Amino acid sequence: MSSIVGSLPVGPLDHVAIAVSDLDEACARYASRLGATISHREAVAGQSVEVAFVEVPGETSLELVAPTAADSPISAFLARRGEGLHHVCFRVEDVDEALRRAAAMGLRLIDAQGRPGARGSRIGFLHPSAFGGVLVELKQRANR
Amino acid sequence: MSSIVGSLPVGPLDHVAIAVSDLDEACARYASRLGATISHREAVAGQSVEVAFVEVPGETSLELVAPTAADSPISAFLARRGEGLHHVCFRVEDVDEALRRAAAMGLRLIDAQGRPGARGSRIGFLHPSAFGGVLVELKQRANR
Repeated sequence: MSSIVGSLPVGPLDHVAIAVSDLDEACARYASRLGATISHREAVAGQSVEVAFVEVPGETSLELVAPTAADSPISAFLARRGEGLHHVCFRVEDVDEALRRAAAMGLRLIDAQGRPGARGSRIGFLHPSAFGGVLVELKQRANR
Repeated sequence: MSSIVGSLPVGPLDHVAIAVSDLDEACARYASRLGATISHREAVAGQSVEVAFVEVPGETSLELVAPTAADSPISAFLARRGEGLHHVCFRVEDVDEALRRAAAMGLRLIDAQGRPGARGSRIGFLHPSAFGGVLVELKQRANR
């Protein structure tokens, strides 16, 4: 049995992220095949990625993530696995508090504290070991 | 440019599926770490998998999928990639109609017509080539 006490204060799934090599092509493919709009596109500072959000019905969107530099973590993912599902992101009210809680639970983190994400959000990643191989992002939306 | 005309009539993301090797252990881990309940657990006939749904806030849940036989597609996935994100599932009103539409759009299918899924649903999978490496399930819920 696990000795972890407490749980992460997660809200709904904000998005499911998909690693792609060509963001223009992927935006066109997802928008046309799902009849969806691309609501936002942004190069995320300091992360060597550009992201775009595919607005499917409901509150969970798809985030397309492409590398903008050879040393991007997404470049490494694409080289190892090819295009495909990359991570899931849960909304949280306070990303710093959620990361502190995760650390107190004994979960391994990638980010000890929140950092800037797309659309003015603050985000942090847990290490995939925290959820058996699944990379989990926590996201505090802007103006919340 | 793509010659595909029309789009898939998808509703909200129903779930994100995660391949796991030990369903008991994964259910305990996800429930405790996310403060979530396991709403349903079922061996899906004919697919050599057992699934469990982790009810996080919002309308998109997590589906944990474990193999129940060595020839399960999930066994092959785990051997190749290890535990991790496996597929995404969109709700549709009529899975047979949605699969016909996908075929008419020129998308490659795994299932030419719907088949039984968990909780009385009818489901069908598109081939990962339809969405650049992402395995997509379509799901018509029971009693709809």
